Amino acid sequence: MIRYSVIGAVGYVCGELLRMMVAHPEGKLVNVLDTFGVGDKICDYHPHLRGFYDQQILDINEENVKATAEASDVVFVQVPSGSVAQWAEIVLAAGKKVIDIGADIRFRDAEVWEKWYGMKHPNPQMTHDAVYCIPEVMREDAKGKSLIANPGCYPTATTIGLQPVLKAGHIVENTIVVDAKSGFTGAGRRPAQNKILAEAENNFCAYALGGGHRHTPEIEQNIAYITGKDLMKPETWQYINFQPHLLPQVRGIEVTIYATLNHDYTNDELYELYKEFYKDEPFVQVYPGKQPVQTKWTYGTNFCAVTPTYDARTHRLIVSSVIDNIGKGAAGQAIQNMNLIMGIPETTGLLFPAMYP
Amino acid sequence: MIRYSVIGAVGYVCGELLRMMVAHPEGKLVNVLDTFGVGDKICDYHPHLRGFYDQQILDINEENVKATAEASDVVFVQVPSGSVAQWAEIVLAAGKKVIDIGADIRFRDAEVWEKWYGMKHPNPQMTHDAVYCIPEVMREDAKGKSLIANPGCYPTATTIGLQPVLKAGHIVENTIVVDAKSGFTGAGRRPAQNKILAEAENNFCAYALGGGHRHTPEIEQNIAYITGKDLMKPETWQYINFQPHLLPQVRGIEVTIYATLNHDYTNDELYELYKEFYKDEPFVQVYPGKQPVQTKWTYGTNFCAVTPTYDARTHRLIVSSVIDNIGKGAAGQAIQNMNLIMGIPETTGLLFPAMYP
Amino acid sequence: MIRYSVIGAVGYVCGELLRMMVAHPEGKLVNVLDTFGVGDKICDYHPHLRGFYDQQILDINEENVKATAEASDVVFVQVPSGSVAQWAEIVLAAGKKVIDIGADIRFRDAEVWEKWYGMKHPNPQMTHDAVYCIPEVMREDAKGKSLIANPGCYPTATTIGLQPVLKAGHIVENTIVVDAKSGFTGAGRRPAQNKILAEAENNFCAYALGGGHRHTPEIEQNIAYITGKDLMKPETWQYINFQPHLLPQVRGIEVTIYATLNHDYTNDELYELYKEFYKDEPFVQVYPGKQPVQTKWTYGTNFCAVTPTYDARTHRLIVSSVIDNIGKGAAGQAIQNMNLIMGIPETTGLLFPAMYP
Amino acid sequence: MIRYSVIGAVGYVCGELLRMMVAHPEGKLVNVLDTFGVGDKICDYHPHLRGFYDQQILDINEENVKATAEASDVVFVQVPSGSVAQWAEIVLAAGKKVIDIGADIRFRDAEVWEKWYGMKHPNPQMTHDAVYCIPEVMREDAKGKSLIANPGCYPTATTIGLQPVLKAGHIVENTIVVDAKSGFTGAGRRPAQNKILAEAENNFCAYALGGGHRHTPEIEQNIAYITGKDLMKPETWQYINFQPHLLPQVRGIEVTIYATLNHDYTNDELYELYKEFYKDEPFVQVYPGKQPVQTKWTYGTNFCAVTPTYDARTHRLIVSSVIDNIGKGAAGQAIQNMNLIMGIPETTGLLFPAMYP
Repeated sequence: MIRYSVIGAVGYVCGELLRMMVAHPEGKLVNVLDTFGVGDKICDYHPHLRGFYDQQILDINEENVKATAEASDVVFVQVPSGSVAQWAEIVLAAGKKVIDIGADIRFRDAEVWEKWYGMKHPNPQMTHDAVYCIPEVMREDAKGKSLIANPGCYPTATTIGLQPVLKAGHIVENTIVVDAKSGFTGAGRRPAQNKILAEAENNFCAYALGGGHRHTPEIEQNIAYITGKDLMKPETWQYINFQPHLLPQVRGIEVTIYATLNHDYTNDELYELYKEFYKDEPFVQVYPGKQPVQTKWTYGTNFCAVTPTYDARTHRLIVSSVIDNIGKGAAGQAIQNMNLIMGIPETTGLLFPAMYP
Repeated sequence: MIRYSVIGAVGYVCGELLRMMVAHPEGKLVNVLDTFGVGDKICDYHPHLRGFYDQQILDINEENVKATAEASDVVFVQVPSGSVAQWAEIVLAAGKKVIDIGADIRFRDAEVWEKWYGMKHPNPQMTHDAVYCIPEVMREDAKGKSLIANPGCYPTATTIGLQPVLKAGHIVENTIVVDAKSGFTGAGRRPAQNKILAEAENNFCAYALGGGHRHTPEIEQNIAYITGKDLMKPETWQYINFQPHLLPQVRGIEVTIYATLNHDYTNDELYELYKEFYKDEPFVQVYPGKQPVQTKWTYGTNFCAVTPTYDARTHRLIVSSVIDNIGKGAAGQAIQNMNLIMGIPETTGLLFPAMYP
Repeated sequence: MIRYSVIGAVGYVCGELLRMMVAHPEGKLVNVLDTFGVGDKICDYHPHLRGFYDQQILDINEENVKATAEASDVVFVQVPSGSVAQWAEIVLAAGKKVIDIGADIRFRDAEVWEKWYGMKHPNPQMTHDAVYCIPEVMREDAKGKSLIANPGCYPTATTIGLQPVLKAGHIVENTIVVDAKSGFTGAGRRPAQNKILAEAENNFCAYALGGGHRHTPEIEQNIAYITGKDLMKPETWQYINFQPHLLPQVRGIEVTIYATLNHDYTNDELYELYKEFYKDEPFVQVYPGKQPVQTKWTYGTNFCAVTPTYDARTHRLIVSSVIDNIGKGAAGQAIQNMNLIMGIPETTGLLFPAMYP
Repeated sequence: MIRYSVIGAVGYVCGELLRMMVAHPEGKLVNVLDTFGVGDKICDYHPHLRGFYDQQILDINEENVKATAEASDVVFVQVPSGSVAQWAEIVLAAGKKVIDIGADIRFRDAEVWEKWYGMKHPNPQMTHDAVYCIPEVMREDAKGKSLIANPGCYPTATTIGLQPVLKAGHIVENTIVVDAKSGFTGAGRRPAQNKILAEAENNFCAYALGGGHRHTPEIEQNIAYITGKDLMKPETWQYINFQPHLLPQVRGIEVTIYATLNHDYTNDELYELYKEFYKDEPFVQVYPGKQPVQTKWTYGTNFCAVTPTYDARTHRLIVSSVIDNIGKGAAGQAIQNMNLIMGIPETTGLLFPAMYP
């Protein structure tokens, strides 16, 4: 049995994590904490969880976090940027494990974080102790560790989509462009005028246009990792363009990745390369060029589906990679990481089909 | 008064063209022709046109086209690829003007068409006589002409989005990548399983993945035109990647254009460059980098809205350009071209705001 | 020329009213006022109006309203419930006309308003002076008047759908049930969690379940009007059930009206009855039983489309009536009322087709 | 272990049934049969099932059905109206159980079926042997039986919504009106123009307007069952109006039920009545009047959620009841019925939360 708790209770990621954990044979929810909704039941904020969980939301404070840590084996944390360290320290001090769903400890070099997140890092040492883990890329690093940085949604889809060709050494430096699209759950639950259905439905647009999205350096760090660069020397990394857009749909991320190659492929060769590369990965599905992946194929799951293609005219790789942004992009991968660090099979509780159509 | 007719009556483009023409002070519909729905009323296929048009659909045959040409000043044609020549010849022989909404005469070099459309061109001479016209790019070519190739939807949004920087000579050759997204009206009206709402809503995917979409060479021809290349020598053109996707919405195209520049800009400089370039264009709206354009801002109109940005880290231009695929992307531009070749102000009947929200 | 102003500038109704007025040959916008966005341009809040209107938003205060009244012929007012009287008084005192888009002066008996809106009416006398006007029902009352209560969206669709059979005297008292559905623009522009796309898309629900919606007595008053009851004696009116729901779409109202009849019809007879009844109404479209109306047929217009049917097994009338909630349901009808009281043809500027698809 | 097969493989209901059965601890799929896609893999038609099922689709013929029956314990059948008898006979003859997801054997009196379905019933005797079963209404009838008529989607939501007050004897005869709305999966998977996203999104309409939908008598039979009428004497049943509509969403049914009562309730009393009535039903969730149920609360599940209210002004009950049309409305209830007739707990494999948001 794995006793787990969640700090950050009312957002979509917690709702999805608890939904998925209903089918997990080992998981047992201990506490849910938030600064919002204290005293209310968790299912008041997640209507689908009624009848499944009736924990009351506890305030996030030292006492509650400490008691929670003591009663739990793993604590998932999703709190505002810059605030995870104080709670993680308490959990770690109690000898328990932390999976941070936010971005605070995703960068080995705290200066990268400080530059892109625009604030002083509260605990740079913690970024060194933490292990950033997309299991399909760096699972060995995470085994047995106590402090996991759960990856961002866009970096997950992008990194899995790039890895085989990166590993093959066939991407020309500084030619990667990632055009990304996400459903509205990726924009969070807080109401805002641009999110209301009357304005957002039947509409599409880019955001953070021109290169400023914070997932950019996270993808660059992953590329550096895969290509063997020193993560503490960001000045040696290659640059990419990462450009996100908002889709008029609830869930789903698609990234179309463009990169110039120094090697020619047929689509079939590329398909074989990817299939072979991911043949032992239960959560990666590879499709041939004629079958571009659809976001709905991964709806509500921990799967990543990828179609790699190559345009010989332009010598460009074009990969379409899809995930559910709150599944493999957040809650699903967090559970996968929990399984990994707790020493049980990674697929435990996570092998269920997408909701389709 | 401009007497006009439409060959190809039951598709979305005709429905939109007739809708827009209600507000056109000069236009008078003569005939509508199609091989489908012959004998039915046009408004049986376009419920919004009830009370506005009650013409019966005539079959498309030599006799009807001839009679139609004689009674009309302009004939809009939207028929399957490869079949426009036979009808256009009749209209031209009658001394009247043709605006082809399809792709048959968009390429100066018929061989380019044959390669990408996979069939023998029925009348290569016609491609020389025709004038391809995005008015914001090549309006002078079209004035007074009789045979107009109305541009494709994606090429329109892309070409307008690229033109100022192309003209400035700042794009590095063969670095252009166009990531395009279109609403479902762009996929036509014929039912298919992937188009039904149960499968298409809340879903997103690429199509023609890897470089095969037929709008690719049309964009390349436009780039060649703007940069002064010989349109009859496609071997001298630069290559681009054009990758389309399907949005779960009714109308709207967004293209995000990436290109490496040989000149550094600030976002503000780029905004000024575009504003200045398009300052006399009534249908082009330029926005600063902080305001990424939204497809809904052009809903049901002939406008193209553009936000240009520059990422100094990667030396890449990133432009987001939006149109309504059946507005500026088809029917609206066809009317603009009609105004142009008939010698009346281009904006006639076309200056109305988008439907928002 | 009709000089008009709008108090209440940033909501969807003002955006739609100004959009429609672009095509109005007589209208000339003077001022826009609001307590929100003062000093900003009107098009900052309505992106589709950029290039069409660039008035600055003036604060709503005595001085500004007075100056606005003096420079205008008609002032449209959409302000929070209970606050219209103070501004209307100023406009009327200046000898100008007021069209109130809100609900303050919709009831002849101010007590009905007080009961359903839960507050003291600030100016009961004004309810007597005001003329509530769905032109298709009570246009004669409004001609030449200065203070118009523009009807609610649901009551408009329902009243037009019921009128012919009510007038025929064939509805059994107290058997009317109205099941209504509205797109999200009907819920206003203020952000709220239940309105964000992530929660609202792909979802449907009733609201105000069980009978409390404020449009109920407005429909009852209209029924009383049509059947010749004294509007000052609400105790003699018949009761109805009116139950609204929220549709996962931007615009559009559909009401399905059920009522027991004391007379048997065939569907064809009912179709003839409605067609004959509305034969001179340019904004009412009647369809036979086999063609249930669709909300999109009236998208962005001032039309109301109606399909009446009769179930002989149960002796019940079943009518489906659709409008655009911010078109005929608000802005369109307000313009129609403006035309009416200004003595120009009702259809001026309003005869344009729906946006379809 | 329960060995099961499905006749009718490529529709949405089979896709959902197999999806749900992944989590069923007893179920083991034997065969899938269809006349469409013979020889292809089942996951070619249901992308979410890739990696979970790879059975080839067998043709539906005597030999295959016989072999399937012999290898299975239960066979689910979803075939066109009028054709279930021939296959059911084979399965029953093999001593195995049949759950018919279609409508062929839903009526005790075959004449009712013939009248509403417009054809001769191929095996009227089979309608007597069959047991129609919404477990929450007539589970005792089904225990140990071999031939189950799985209820229609609309009748399921309606009957559960009406049962407590019907049982209490408080509904005035012939006053029931059911206004129903369904997502597009309810309209099947076959492409048609009115189903394509370009026309269906952002649109809403009634269908079968005026009383002809085939679920009407199914609801009337259920009412007769609950109120103790003889199901073989349809002339003694009460009449209802059932009016369906199409929602622009993938899944979900909401029915709003209106009925005049002969007894006054407060909303709280009604809430208590329903809560008490369904207190032992794991798949029925009752909400108080202030919380109208939302279709998404049951997304992808076997739950039915109900909010009952009462309008004392009009003496009408107004109940909102929601299900997932292919969950509790088809596949989920079919599995529940399988559990029931196989003698295992009804909830086996079915207690998982909805996908939200």
